[in-house]
Amino acid sequence: MTSDIARGRVIVEPVTSDVLRGNAAGDPHVRDVPVYLPPSYDREPSRRYPVVLVLSGFTGRGRMQLNDNPWSPSLPDRMDAMIAAGTCGELILVMPDCFTRFGGSQYIDSSATGRYETHLVEELVPWADARFRTLASRDHRGIAGKSSGGYGALVHGMRHADVFGAVACHSGDACFDYCYRGDLPKFCSAIQHAGGLAAWLKGFERAIHKKHDDIAVLNILGMAANYSPNPATPPFGIDLPVDLETGAFRPEVWERWLAHDPLQMAGRHVDALRSLRLLFIDCGTHDEFHLHLGARMLSRRLRELGIAHHHEEFEDGHMNIGYRYETSLPRVARALGAPQVAT
Amino acid sequence: MTSDIARGRVIVEPVTSDVLRGNAAGDPHVRDVPVYLPPSYDREPSRRYPVVLVLSGFTGRGRMQLNDNPWSPSLPDRMDAMIAAGTCGELILVMPDCFTRFGGSQYIDSSATGRYETHLVEELVPWADARFRTLASRDHRGIAGKSSGGYGALVHGMRHADVFGAVACHSGDACFDYCYRGDLPKFCSAIQHAGGLAAWLKGFERAIHKKHDDIAVLNILGMAANYSPNPATPPFGIDLPVDLETGAFRPEVWERWLAHDPLQMAGRHVDALRSLRLLFIDCGTHDEFHLHLGARMLSRRLRELGIAHHHEEFEDGHMNIGYRYETSLPRVARALGAPQVAT
Amino acid sequence: MTSDIARGRVIVEPVTSDVLRGNAAGDPHVRDVPVYLPPSYDREPSRRYPVVLVLSGFTGRGRMQLNDNPWSPSLPDRMDAMIAAGTCGELILVMPDCFTRFGGSQYIDSSATGRYETHLVEELVPWADARFRTLASRDHRGIAGKSSGGYGALVHGMRHADVFGAVACHSGDACFDYCYRGDLPKFCSAIQHAGGLAAWLKGFERAIHKKHDDIAVLNILGMAANYSPNPATPPFGIDLPVDLETGAFRPEVWERWLAHDPLQMAGRHVDALRSLRLLFIDCGTHDEFHLHLGARMLSRRLRELGIAHHHEEFEDGHMNIGYRYETSLPRVARALGAPQVAT
Amino acid sequence: MTSDIARGRVIVEPVTSDVLRGNAAGDPHVRDVPVYLPPSYDREPSRRYPVVLVLSGFTGRGRMQLNDNPWSPSLPDRMDAMIAAGTCGELILVMPDCFTRFGGSQYIDSSATGRYETHLVEELVPWADARFRTLASRDHRGIAGKSSGGYGALVHGMRHADVFGAVACHSGDACFDYCYRGDLPKFCSAIQHAGGLAAWLKGFERAIHKKHDDIAVLNILGMAANYSPNPATPPFGIDLPVDLETGAFRPEVWERWLAHDPLQMAGRHVDALRSLRLLFIDCGTHDEFHLHLGARMLSRRLRELGIAHHHEEFEDGHMNIGYRYETSLPRVARALGAPQVAT
Repeated sequence: MTSDIARGRVIVEPVTSDVLRGNAAGDPHVRDVPVYLPPSYDREPSRRYPVVLVLSGFTGRGRMQLNDNPWSPSLPDRMDAMIAAGTCGELILVMPDCFTRFGGSQYIDSSATGRYETHLVEELVPWADARFRTLASRDHRGIAGKSSGGYGALVHGMRHADVFGAVACHSGDACFDYCYRGDLPKFCSAIQHAGGLAAWLKGFERAIHKKHDDIAVLNILGMAANYSPNPATPPFGIDLPVDLETGAFRPEVWERWLAHDPLQMAGRHVDALRSLRLLFIDCGTHDEFHLHLGARMLSRRLRELGIAHHHEEFEDGHMNIGYRYETSLPRVARALGAPQVAT
Repeated sequence: MTSDIARGRVIVEPVTSDVLRGNAAGDPHVRDVPVYLPPSYDREPSRRYPVVLVLSGFTGRGRMQLNDNPWSPSLPDRMDAMIAAGTCGELILVMPDCFTRFGGSQYIDSSATGRYETHLVEELVPWADARFRTLASRDHRGIAGKSSGGYGALVHGMRHADVFGAVACHSGDACFDYCYRGDLPKFCSAIQHAGGLAAWLKGFERAIHKKHDDIAVLNILGMAANYSPNPATPPFGIDLPVDLETGAFRPEVWERWLAHDPLQMAGRHVDALRSLRLLFIDCGTHDEFHLHLGARMLSRRLRELGIAHHHEEFEDGHMNIGYRYETSLPRVARALGAPQVAT
Repeated sequence: MTSDIARGRVIVEPVTSDVLRGNAAGDPHVRDVPVYLPPSYDREPSRRYPVVLVLSGFTGRGRMQLNDNPWSPSLPDRMDAMIAAGTCGELILVMPDCFTRFGGSQYIDSSATGRYETHLVEELVPWADARFRTLASRDHRGIAGKSSGGYGALVHGMRHADVFGAVACHSGDACFDYCYRGDLPKFCSAIQHAGGLAAWLKGFERAIHKKHDDIAVLNILGMAANYSPNPATPPFGIDLPVDLETGAFRPEVWERWLAHDPLQMAGRHVDALRSLRLLFIDCGTHDEFHLHLGARMLSRRLRELGIAHHHEEFEDGHMNIGYRYETSLPRVARALGAPQVAT
Repeated sequence: MTSDIARGRVIVEPVTSDVLRGNAAGDPHVRDVPVYLPPSYDREPSRRYPVVLVLSGFTGRGRMQLNDNPWSPSLPDRMDAMIAAGTCGELILVMPDCFTRFGGSQYIDSSATGRYETHLVEELVPWADARFRTLASRDHRGIAGKSSGGYGALVHGMRHADVFGAVACHSGDACFDYCYRGDLPKFCSAIQHAGGLAAWLKGFERAIHKKHDDIAVLNILGMAANYSPNPATPPFGIDLPVDLETGAFRPEVWERWLAHDPLQMAGRHVDALRSLRLLFIDCGTHDEFHLHLGARMLSRRLRELGIAHHHEEFEDGHMNIGYRYETSLPRVARALGAPQVAT
């Protein structure tokens, strides 16, 4: 998207994580982290900017926010356009890589994957503050994301409201009974057909093309890795909400998942959520994972709890909705005190 | 399938039902019922034959068992071929029509649809015995079906073992947590998008082409009509397992569904099930509704309860598996004492 | 569709064909032919009726016109409803079976399949006149069909206007450059992958479920069997418009196909077409085979040739459009002098 | 793909084109061009490297070669891995942006899009030689691409063998009768439904999500823009191979397309093709556009013309085959004299 507008600059830097070193899933502890620096960054060398962590969805990682498509601009290109149009204040954007062998981390700590929640809060945030001219306080720091990234933003807003002052959650995982549970039998069948978890994962990793159904299976495996890890369970230290032998549902494992459902978590983090300068939640009304129902229930729950938030819906599904950042980031920028460029 | 083998004869007769008259769904109380009479029926006028009720799946009815396809013979054509080959004894097949506005009846009584269970047992069975030369006793009477028809066969085997002595269930509904529950959010969304149950159904009925997703929605509506009817609930006298307003799951309604799950029912009908001359259960290992998992759990449950049965699996999905009758009906015929024709 | 309207009667009779005996494709020469007799047929034993041959589409045969579906009535059920409503005069409908191993015959004579055109005109028509109380003259005899059946109706209207006085063509094959040619490379690849024609057909015939792509391949094979047969070409006596060795297009074979294209044929049968009492042509504007473009070009060509006809379009695709008979058959009945029942 | 291997560096630079300024399609004349510099580039400041232009497929542009995916590395990541493994010599890769409003340029000059062929040969090649330490001669300069990019590589190899000494064509457009012609009726229908070319394009550009069928339509429009431009034809200066009014095929326009078919072009550029140090052609045997048939015919034609080349096939379709560069680029590197790093 070359045009004559002022453009920001993207740096992709390897970040070495101590907390991810030697993680159980065998994923790298050095990660490429793209950072977007806004157009004025270089020409105003003493100015500091609010910073927002933008979290990718399941199977995603920060570099994918840079992916180009002639009809769907990358996140930096969208930022450039909004800043040029005067619709969004200047922000630094940090795009973490919390991808794992199991497709993702949900941005939380798990013995089966790694300490990704700790990595974000204790490593990436300080790194960004040290490396770039951020406004290094929670009132100027936000977190946003889509799908699993939206979930991560919500969770960090609940558990780390001292670190993040604004949250934007696009199509985030909520109401696990609706968004995951329906795929459990498909998961169970696929693993049984493959001859077990290890065999399934090996086949998946070998396949050049990952199929839609395979990703659905990986999704359940990934969520189990994050919500119900158990170092004692071979081969991957993961408890599953189905018995692979009999196919039976395992309610005791499912309860562990539900403890991570924002619908349940909200009540445990009322003060934190109330303290946010912005809590933005949206979802498409044709979300293939039915997350719009979860978002509505979450909004209703937040209202019951007296937690101010902004909830909206849009006419679309779950995929390829990067354009929704054009709705949320201007609000986040305003909440974090980013001055808009005069047009 | 014209060939030089001896062929049976199909009669399609209108049957007037007293118990269906004035049913709540507004469906007709006169139904076309096809009956297959085996090749020797006309030339051996004093001979009597075992009889099997063959129940259609959801959205089906008896006449559809006659549907022709050059590569997938109708049920009568399959019977002719098996009898000619000497692999199956001669049977009379009765193909009930228990279709309803909501897609089906599950072959049970419901205030929202009609008294289809009563219709089968108290009307159709006596009608067949009176109208055709059946061997009119439970030891010579069977019930078979596929999908919802397989479910119906199971339920009748449990509750009417005095009427039916053999049961064959192909890919029958079982483990409702797996086969229905995952579609609840899709159902909820679709009804909300349409503006309510009545609006949705009107749109569905008007559409010339029913889409795959629409049938999934109708399926949940149909199951609710059969498993959780409630004359007090407008507009259709049906309680739903989701709150259409909030989207929330309603566990108290779901419990009413589960009471109809063969996994739960089996334990309440142990003696009846033990009394069957044949209890045949199969399912494809790639069943799109995951019914193979339900069948395995049911088989395991039956073993726990000491109920003899035959459980097998085949490499296929849920649709277009009429050829499975070539596996079950010979067994049913044998169990019901139908002599095989010498080849 | 049991209701209290007067209903016609369907007879399915085996018809023995002399011209099909020993056909090259090995298909049976005795065929089940359903015949619809209108409601008054039995109670008015001296009355005679116009007769219409209704031709099935590719992979279809007469018995499939009886196939039941709760939301898409069979052809006899549609006739009953129209006659009861007074929108269509009473007709006898004859539903030929011209299915072949290669999916169909296009209702023409071919050394590779059989003499199906002769079978219709010289065998089935006289049989129907002898067996039923038809008005046995071309002014009271029509021919109609859908897809390949619509094509057959057109061709018979051109070549046998002495036999048929009215033609209705729904979504009939026309403009072969558009409806077939685009599938030639897919056909070529599939046959090459299978290791040749014989191997492909064997695999196709063995497969329990015929896939969409397989039918597309069979379609090209079937058209070649009908349009470019050649007894000298092994293994099936069929010349193909592609060279299976090099994959190259063979224009000399394609020219033989084009000679069968209604767009070309029309100019060779102007007097016959002008003599028709009705020439009805329609097609859906979203036809998956683009036949609406062919129908438009055919209509334009007919206008150029001064041939009266009725051309209309409807908003739908190619499949499951049996309801279009409710538009054409009333016109056919009127053209053939069938008196409408007073309502 | 952070790991401990030596990694190259990617620069994305805006390149200003004089020949594209004021192009008819209204596309920008400043383009972001990514350039991959191999691992040793910075530490060996006097060393020069062979250079390869890598051309994107239809709807693609250079920046998309950088797109990240956890299971399908970007082109630079693949290069890093191959160089580290010692399987490929070090190369500079230049990734042009020749995207247009109509989806692409086929890398040729057209009055309807712009002078992209001239842009590549007269602008980008000199720019790369001036800006980077290339080995600036045809014997050290290659061109490669996939799909439309593969086509572009072929065409440049034919017409600019003085500029490029090696060509790699993955799944390139060839045998236009097979890869495009079948989509003409679909194109015609879609444009008619939309109410004309301008209306269709407006709708396409407005749609947030571009559908598969829309891309097929754009593909035909794009090819017409490149193969049969005509400044006199409103609204876009493009002649179409179908008459949008009647739907009729226009053979005289199609002939203009065929003049661009590599199958026809090869015979006009025999000496150029013979002069290449490498002519590599491959295609997947399940190519959805049947390009494997075109590749085979092209290979056969090249053999007839006595043109040395390497033709191979792989078991895959058309999409997401970036891994094929791991087969071609090592050969290209060798042909261009890039020394392999010792492992």
